[in-house]
Amino acid sequence: MTATSLPAPTGYSLPLSPSGTSAMITPPPWHFSGDVIMVDYRVDPEAAARFLPPGLDLGPDPGAAAAVFAEWQWCSESGAELADPATCQFSEFLLLIGCSHDGRPMARCPYAWVDQPVPMVRGWIQGMPKQFGAIHQTRPKPVGIAGQRPAPGERLHGSLSVSGRRVAEAGVELTGLADEPPFLHTVPLVHTRHFPAWTPDDEPVSDLVTSEVTGVEFTPVWRGEADLRLFDVLDGDFAALAPVEIGAGYVFSYAETLRGGRLLAPAADPGR
Amino acid sequence: MTATSLPAPTGYSLPLSPSGTSAMITPPPWHFSGDVIMVDYRVDPEAAARFLPPGLDLGPDPGAAAAVFAEWQWCSESGAELADPATCQFSEFLLLIGCSHDGRPMARCPYAWVDQPVPMVRGWIQGMPKQFGAIHQTRPKPVGIAGQRPAPGERLHGSLSVSGRRVAEAGVELTGLADEPPFLHTVPLVHTRHFPAWTPDDEPVSDLVTSEVTGVEFTPVWRGEADLRLFDVLDGDFAALAPVEIGAGYVFSYAETLRGGRLLAPAADPGR
Amino acid sequence: MTATSLPAPTGYSLPLSPSGTSAMITPPPWHFSGDVIMVDYRVDPEAAARFLPPGLDLGPDPGAAAAVFAEWQWCSESGAELADPATCQFSEFLLLIGCSHDGRPMARCPYAWVDQPVPMVRGWIQGMPKQFGAIHQTRPKPVGIAGQRPAPGERLHGSLSVSGRRVAEAGVELTGLADEPPFLHTVPLVHTRHFPAWTPDDEPVSDLVTSEVTGVEFTPVWRGEADLRLFDVLDGDFAALAPVEIGAGYVFSYAETLRGGRLLAPAADPGR
Amino acid sequence: MTATSLPAPTGYSLPLSPSGTSAMITPPPWHFSGDVIMVDYRVDPEAAARFLPPGLDLGPDPGAAAAVFAEWQWCSESGAELADPATCQFSEFLLLIGCSHDGRPMARCPYAWVDQPVPMVRGWIQGMPKQFGAIHQTRPKPVGIAGQRPAPGERLHGSLSVSGRRVAEAGVELTGLADEPPFLHTVPLVHTRHFPAWTPDDEPVSDLVTSEVTGVEFTPVWRGEADLRLFDVLDGDFAALAPVEIGAGYVFSYAETLRGGRLLAPAADPGR
Repeated sequence: MTATSLPAPTGYSLPLSPSGTSAMITPPPWHFSGDVIMVDYRVDPEAAARFLPPGLDLGPDPGAAAAVFAEWQWCSESGAELADPATCQFSEFLLLIGCSHDGRPMARCPYAWVDQPVPMVRGWIQGMPKQFGAIHQTRPKPVGIAGQRPAPGERLHGSLSVSGRRVAEAGVELTGLADEPPFLHTVPLVHTRHFPAWTPDDEPVSDLVTSEVTGVEFTPVWRGEADLRLFDVLDGDFAALAPVEIGAGYVFSYAETLRGGRLLAPAADPGR
Repeated sequence: MTATSLPAPTGYSLPLSPSGTSAMITPPPWHFSGDVIMVDYRVDPEAAARFLPPGLDLGPDPGAAAAVFAEWQWCSESGAELADPATCQFSEFLLLIGCSHDGRPMARCPYAWVDQPVPMVRGWIQGMPKQFGAIHQTRPKPVGIAGQRPAPGERLHGSLSVSGRRVAEAGVELTGLADEPPFLHTVPLVHTRHFPAWTPDDEPVSDLVTSEVTGVEFTPVWRGEADLRLFDVLDGDFAALAPVEIGAGYVFSYAETLRGGRLLAPAADPGR
Repeated sequence: MTATSLPAPTGYSLPLSPSGTSAMITPPPWHFSGDVIMVDYRVDPEAAARFLPPGLDLGPDPGAAAAVFAEWQWCSESGAELADPATCQFSEFLLLIGCSHDGRPMARCPYAWVDQPVPMVRGWIQGMPKQFGAIHQTRPKPVGIAGQRPAPGERLHGSLSVSGRRVAEAGVELTGLADEPPFLHTVPLVHTRHFPAWTPDDEPVSDLVTSEVTGVEFTPVWRGEADLRLFDVLDGDFAALAPVEIGAGYVFSYAETLRGGRLLAPAADPGR
Repeated sequence: MTATSLPAPTGYSLPLSPSGTSAMITPPPWHFSGDVIMVDYRVDPEAAARFLPPGLDLGPDPGAAAAVFAEWQWCSESGAELADPATCQFSEFLLLIGCSHDGRPMARCPYAWVDQPVPMVRGWIQGMPKQFGAIHQTRPKPVGIAGQRPAPGERLHGSLSVSGRRVAEAGVELTGLADEPPFLHTVPLVHTRHFPAWTPDDEPVSDLVTSEVTGVEFTPVWRGEADLRLFDVLDGDFAALAPVEIGAGYVFSYAETLRGGRLLAPAADPGR
């Protein structure tokens, strides 16, 4: 008996298996519903520029940046994951840098952390550089003293620790409703989908892509006074994105459906 | 120099320290705000009776029981913990058995699990038998496909795993608003505050106490069709509390302030 | 100022950054030193064959399989990771299936789990289908009652839980030294390096590769009577690899240096 | 039917249950086998004195202190826990201060952290102020580049993080075998067994006790040059125990059986 007469093991991702049901990652679309605490801030534009690959520039507002905490629930097309809350929830922290591609404003995510393995690997598939961290943010509760609610004067907080070291902390004291969502949460994300080479015959995958998203929903957006601290406990590249000025904070819920990617530029650029 | 001329190290709990600020547990009152998924069920009354210490009887509804998932935020009197969401949040799963003390309906908690150390130790101080587990429950989100919201037809879920084994799962499919909160969530808890003996000179602490609670708040309570599974992966005593009938499910938020305990009966009862 | 005049952000893996120091994964070589508990077992050969991609066959011993627990310490070429034990340790559980490529005996790994994010992503780079799990195995200690030591009559154990469900358990009661290491731990691993497509322009990466390893060291290998349980709590594909017969158990330490991969067959096979 | 005709639920600890098998903590004796990395250091004697309760003084070497990392395996009398490595392993970090009771040299543990709930609660029963932390230490491996072995020139490391903040780091570069174990690991521990009051009728349990230990075993003890950092991320009381001088480091394995406690002084001392 030889294996070659059988169909190859299959699946959207590893592990490949006879029926494909073992794959760690389900194929898109993926639906996300989340609660967000976001702080606008400014970085040294020159530092930001060094994080942009060829094809992107700093755009109309050089140095615009944001720190985003989000607590998500997700499911794939079938919705099956929602029946197991141990699987369908994760927390995320990411930085965003304002940029532009062919004159279109976009956001670049230089760093991101999540606390579950499935969204980490799914991030790498789409080019989002998700690592593992411990992320916590205030969960508003409708009753009692211990559940800050969106209302003027209430304070919400977020924190990120990586490998047992505190990396980021933020707080927002709400003042009122904003007219619109924070700008960097309204523009497309532009990622470098990167998969290292492994054999002498390989070239790394390294494509500039943007995410194709539908079903965007925002709740009303609360705005407030913010604080933000990024601690210098990682490498110098991360430290270069420390705040030089801190802007407004925002609290809102958000939903989207992520359907796939669109190629902006392949890696086959001979200049690289 | 001798230590005896100095004030003794102090604190509400261990670790005792010169100023008392190192104590793991802050003194009460403790404020709690939480989101609850609860399933009424029935156990074999004889099995329930074996979990009741002298002084308690099964009361007016022998065999009434409930399984409760709750995701809490808490703070002590100063509210300081709310500034660090890595500290002030925990999830809990517990069983309740209906009982009665001197004719007053109460609820007995034979088993409880939390996912943070501070509420675990705080449980032992008040007599609540909290162990460590992984607890997850659906978090409603106001927007999107992946955030089930309290509304007819929506399903919320909860699960408990202990030492890598699935112990409990529940689901509630909402049908409408209930007239009132589920009964076992409205009566006082009655605990045995137990601290083992350690030296030959000791007797264990073992007092029947009830909790003194103020500031109770309920949101409107959603009701629905429930399912509940308790898996036989712990000991036979736990298995004896498996459901013989499953009742309604409930989804609501709840707040209380826990102020201390009241002694119902000391252990020094010669009848024991 | 435009970003295009600057060097592109760089790195062996995501996150790409100006100096490349932010990359989650260091480039190979990677050095591994680990303690292993391994159980030989047999699966239905037909089930095993369905896990083999074109180019592999079941080889000389159809149905040969193994379950492997390993507790690793690792470092990259600089050795820097060894200074932070929170970073350089992980535990692993994997299944192996005996197979053959062009008449050369190899081992196929259909399922693997680790408990740290860096080895998980590193697994995907080399084609090893590592997911996240809780893995524990007996750690021999040279003194005392609670530290089973390699010696006749001693029992060592391992367990795997995934998402709070027990997936695998094994035990080995040692009888004496083996003449040689277990066969499936001595042959090269053959993986499918798979990276999903994301944009309409993509084809998935899907290459058959083998790992290039140097510096292999074994301690003397203990052998014993084994038990092994794979629980049917994942999908049917995993369940198809349940033991039909359980062979010997082995306990040993092992080291290797992983230097990269070698391409056995590209995905560009037009038959796929 | 009333419960009062039934035997009371029982157990060494909570949860009490009909047969007592649900208790989280088994009764002593408890057997421990562990690998230790220990650093002798010196604190300000006046700071140390403030951590000593009445009945203890600083003894013959005021300011002697140690930081101890240990990775344990444990079991109770039956040995049953050893069959489940997910249950019988934990890591610990603790500080020790040299002291004296009635002229007998002892060690006081002002702070301790473990990474598993059972040893945390067991610590409170015996008066050891164990909190929850993430503790990692080098695991020597007998083969390969990534497993530092006890030998001259090798470096072993330990770290403690609490709530996502790095609290302690230590390293030892081995120089040779020591003549004897480090002093503070050879003297009895003296604890304050403290259980807070809960009802208006209670007094806190607060007894000065020492641990009764048998079956002590040491492997040969390696000695070396040490470094130690305690970070000021907890309260001021902890910060007061920062090193003013760092002594030798030690690496060894150790076993003991903990059989119970002996009362040195009850809290009812009217002098308090």
